[in-house]
Amino acid sequence: MLKIVIVISIAFLVAAINGIFLIPLLHKLKFGQEIREEGPKWHKAKSGTPTMGGFIFIIALLVAVIVGVFVFGIYKDLQMLKSVTVITLAAVGFGAIGFVDDYIKVILKRNLGLKAGQKFSLQLLVALLFGVWLVSGGIIDTTVYIPFFGIAVTLPYLVYIPFIILVMLAAVNSVNLTDGLDGLAGTITLVVSIFYCVISKRVESTAVALISSALIGGLLGFLIYNKYPAKVFMGDTGSLFLGGAVAAMAIYMKNPLLLLLVGFVYVAEAMSVILQVAWFKKTGKRIFKMSPIHHHFEMCGWSEKKIVAVFSAVTALLCLVGYFA
Amino acid sequence: MLKIVIVISIAFLVAAINGIFLIPLLHKLKFGQEIREEGPKWHKAKSGTPTMGGFIFIIALLVAVIVGVFVFGIYKDLQMLKSVTVITLAAVGFGAIGFVDDYIKVILKRNLGLKAGQKFSLQLLVALLFGVWLVSGGIIDTTVYIPFFGIAVTLPYLVYIPFIILVMLAAVNSVNLTDGLDGLAGTITLVVSIFYCVISKRVESTAVALISSALIGGLLGFLIYNKYPAKVFMGDTGSLFLGGAVAAMAIYMKNPLLLLLVGFVYVAEAMSVILQVAWFKKTGKRIFKMSPIHHHFEMCGWSEKKIVAVFSAVTALLCLVGYFA
Repeated sequence: MLKIVIVISIAFLVAAINGIFLIPLLHKLKFGQEIREEGPKWHKAKSGTPTMGGFIFIIALLVAVIVGVFVFGIYKDLQMLKSVTVITLAAVGFGAIGFVDDYIKVILKRNLGLKAGQKFSLQLLVALLFGVWLVSGGIIDTTVYIPFFGIAVTLPYLVYIPFIILVMLAAVNSVNLTDGLDGLAGTITLVVSIFYCVISKRVESTAVALISSALIGGLLGFLIYNKYPAKVFMGDTGSLFLGGAVAAMAIYMKNPLLLLLVGFVYVAEAMSVILQVAWFKKTGKRIFKMSPIHHHFEMCGWSEKKIVAVFSAVTALLCLVGYFA
Repeated sequence: MLKIVIVISIAFLVAAINGIFLIPLLHKLKFGQEIREEGPKWHKAKSGTPTMGGFIFIIALLVAVIVGVFVFGIYKDLQMLKSVTVITLAAVGFGAIGFVDDYIKVILKRNLGLKAGQKFSLQLLVALLFGVWLVSGGIIDTTVYIPFFGIAVTLPYLVYIPFIILVMLAAVNSVNLTDGLDGLAGTITLVVSIFYCVISKRVESTAVALISSALIGGLLGFLIYNKYPAKVFMGDTGSLFLGGAVAAMAIYMKNPLLLLLVGFVYVAEAMSVILQVAWFKKTGKRIFKMSPIHHHFEMCGWSEKKIVAVFSAVTALLCLVGYFA
């Protein structure tokens, strides 16, 4: 218990201090993101806010995880050390893809960043490496729990790996889409991280306890600067890192399907885009006033703060339900 | 799991619908509370907002608990039925004291309500009845867990009862003091209720699962109307009820000391008043700009929303720590 408090506190302090130094630096380096043209018009006012703020919690997580390896005594247990490493590297891998994307956007001024095919290929590669390492490295087997049914299915290797890739790609891109309002992706992922920290005790996973605690502290520190009105955005650097971290923990605990419930906001954001585009192609009409769905609520007159509060409350309740799954 | 969703949903719906009818009624009956004169001046603008809104979640809780007794199959188990009844009646008992207090304030226009001695005597009586019923009724024994030390102490009956009374009185009056900003007491108690719902699974207490779920739903419905800017206040009716419910669950689970951690906001609110008064009497100076402590933060320039958000986040983190206790 004390260990968790220590890790959360370290991550929080590192992130909070990080922000003080990093935000002016990002400003100076002109890492202000042009706001995407297809978003709501009033978001134009956000132009100039620096992006790549994800580094605030990425650095915090790395520091807290390294300290935590000693605090939790993980260094004495090779298997556990491997677990912590593979989850952390998966998150960092996706964060790196996000960084390349952000870098192209803000330095090369190509507003949409990496081409879709390039981004997809890189994500596929990281997800594949993660899945193969996890199973071939003997960290977990190919069992997947089916929540609410109390059963577990052991998949053949050649089914499991594509399944893991699908989960990873769906998760990182959904979190990426969720990151469209001040504090939204950070707060939702904070709630989900608290959920995984709680769950880690039940499944007795020290690796997840450590990484989720580091995420909690890092996100709390980041939110000081990212809450409305945001002084920094996490960028794809941040959102892909968060998606990678959350998905990797879910997969490692062999319960990735539970993410569909506790990460319902991510799912809804992604589904709203898919449905909107599909429906528009088919009928020429829109289902939502704008997608992803947080923009729909904005167009309905909800404030950014209200959307973040309601989406977070919904996530908290779904986490409670997930706890009883 | 489905049972919890059902109870939360019923409580939420009843509260939400309740609000539609009850708030205009309270307005009509002129149950608008005069804002206490010693509070911040800007709170004067809140005069005229109806109070006694606690009925919104009290009725919701009662309906949801009655339905839940069948949903959870509690009616088949006399011991469990007794548990649910005694916890519910403790909350209702304190709510009734709060109601008398509110009634005197708004109908008889005596702004401070019941005299301190009367209020204290009534609270003492309800707490005594609760404690005696709980133990002499054979619902629980006099064991008290000491969190973080992993030990349990079995107290003599004549020590246990006064201890229970102390816990109850401290809890209800602390929650009462916490209820001074739009949405504050409701949101904090919502987070604490989620914590108790989670804990109920670990200690396998169906009674606490039911009552905490009913509280969650009821408070969510109430917060629609009580969030900033509040259209209704819970009044002492509500805050004493909530304090009674939370304390009764904590005592029933034999872990009342854990409330000091997860209900730290309540504790801080009460302590700020005690310290402020004591220090002022001794030195003629103030420690806080104003007590209870939420007013101190207001005087520091924090918005009501910000105070509620920060206090809730602190509560959520302390609940996480408490989960690992």
